[in-house]
Amino acid sequence: MPEFMDVHHGLKGITGEQLQEAHRADLAIEAEERVHFKQAWADPQSGEVYCLSEAPSAEAVQRIHDRAGHPADEIHPVPLTA
Amino acid sequence: MPEFMDVHHGLKGITGEQLQEAHRADLAIEAEERVHFKQAWADPQSGEVYCLSEAPSAEAVQRIHDRAGHPADEIHPVPLTA
Repeated sequence: MPEFMDVHHGLKGITGEQLQEAHRADLAIEAEERVHFKQAWADPQSGEVYCLSEAPSAEAVQRIHDRAGHPADEIHPVPLTA
Repeated sequence: MPEFMDVHHGLKGITGEQLQEAHRADLAIEAEERVHFKQAWADPQSGEVYCLSEAPSAEAVQRIHDRAGHPADEIHPVPLTA
């Protein structure tokens, strides 16, 4: 399954609890699009949030993030890893 | 040890071999700054590369990337994970 890194901007001041809650909202519905959100990282100072997922497409990733209430600003396929 | 996500822009067309080579160049010297690059992901189409590391500071991450020949465009501490 292809991997994707998606990025959310502008979430300055996000707390650990808010990140966990957003991640749980994704996990609760991700199977409906055959997406799996593997991990998320947040920088509360700059407001950048990164999510790593496995999914059939970037559109599937966005549909889950949309429905969970936090559409991504960028979604990049990351076919190369090291 | 704090975690950091750094981002390189403009690497359109990067190959798997180039990513591996860049990552190996980081790994070869990272201990000198007590940095550890855990994983890297690349999108050859947009040219975005993401590196996850553990390090004492963003400056230490950049010193290793600089010396390895590929300074990062952004380095974000990511104290929150999910």
